Amino acid sequence: MSVTENLLEYNRGYAERFAQGGRPAEPARGVAVVTCMDARVHPESLLGLELGDAHVLRNAGGRVTDDVLRSLIISAHVLGTREYLVIHHTRCGMLGATNDALRARVAAATGADASGIDFLPFDDMDDSVRDDVQLIRASPHLPADATVSGYVYDVDTGALSAVSGRNRE
Amino acid sequence: MSVTENLLEYNRGYAERFAQGGRPAEPARGVAVVTCMDARVHPESLLGLELGDAHVLRNAGGRVTDDVLRSLIISAHVLGTREYLVIHHTRCGMLGATNDALRARVAAATGADASGIDFLPFDDMDDSVRDDVQLIRASPHLPADATVSGYVYDVDTGALSAVSGRNRE
Repeated sequence: MSVTENLLEYNRGYAERFAQGGRPAEPARGVAVVTCMDARVHPESLLGLELGDAHVLRNAGGRVTDDVLRSLIISAHVLGTREYLVIHHTRCGMLGATNDALRARVAAATGADASGIDFLPFDDMDDSVRDDVQLIRASPHLPADATVSGYVYDVDTGALSAVSGRNRE
Repeated sequence: MSVTENLLEYNRGYAERFAQGGRPAEPARGVAVVTCMDARVHPESLLGLELGDAHVLRNAGGRVTDDVLRSLIISAHVLGTREYLVIHHTRCGMLGATNDALRARVAAATGADASGIDFLPFDDMDDSVRDDVQLIRASPHLPADATVSGYVYDVDTGALSAVSGRNRE
């Protein structure tokens, strides 16, 4: 049995126990979280989010890309969120990686040219959080009264640390 | 106290109880899930994913964008995943929306020109799932032996339904 089949099997039991239907699309707590796809990060668990509470956006690194901005704009203007958290984490696969090394690895594995892909690696976690917080703050398409804050999550202790200060000049 | 402050307060208790450090970055079950940011979707809960099991990628709609492909390429070639699930869901805010209406709404709220943004709305959930499954299958940068499957999650019953068949011609 594939892992996919195991997950579907699990879901059949989940649906039998499920009793939380009928909720609105608008997040009850008015918040959206941008974080990494990393398997060691369970955003709902580490923030205490119940079903229906918050939007959660995830990609490699928890980077604020055009796709994340697209999603946050919908989150804000269609579904009413006003508080945004950016959370990167320790021991991230994107920390210390380089585009050259990643492109070579993908090309070697697939034979396909990967030279056009920016994988958005970073060298300093606090800087990557500040950069991404700033990208949200600078968007002309998000509400002026929104609050944006940034954090590093420690995958070994379960703790969030605030990243303070302004973006690099 | 803002919602953000409440989430940080919750995390302090989570970290005190946390005893799952020391895990590797590679997802233990070799799987990545692409789904919507929707607050009513908790991917780890509905699939039975434990800490460390799977990559989870989320944006508005669970659409397979360039950013999702970037993330899946890292997931596959750096962190070893080989099974991918695309999960859209019922009562999605992107279902039946139009770019024109969304752009007008954002422009009215912010005064900023939003005409250049494709919000990736869709009219048919099964089609959107098939389209996005096909985008992953068609990527030359993902492993040829990967498996990709697509589902609709019912936010009112907790159940996943497989979307079968090929992409639209």
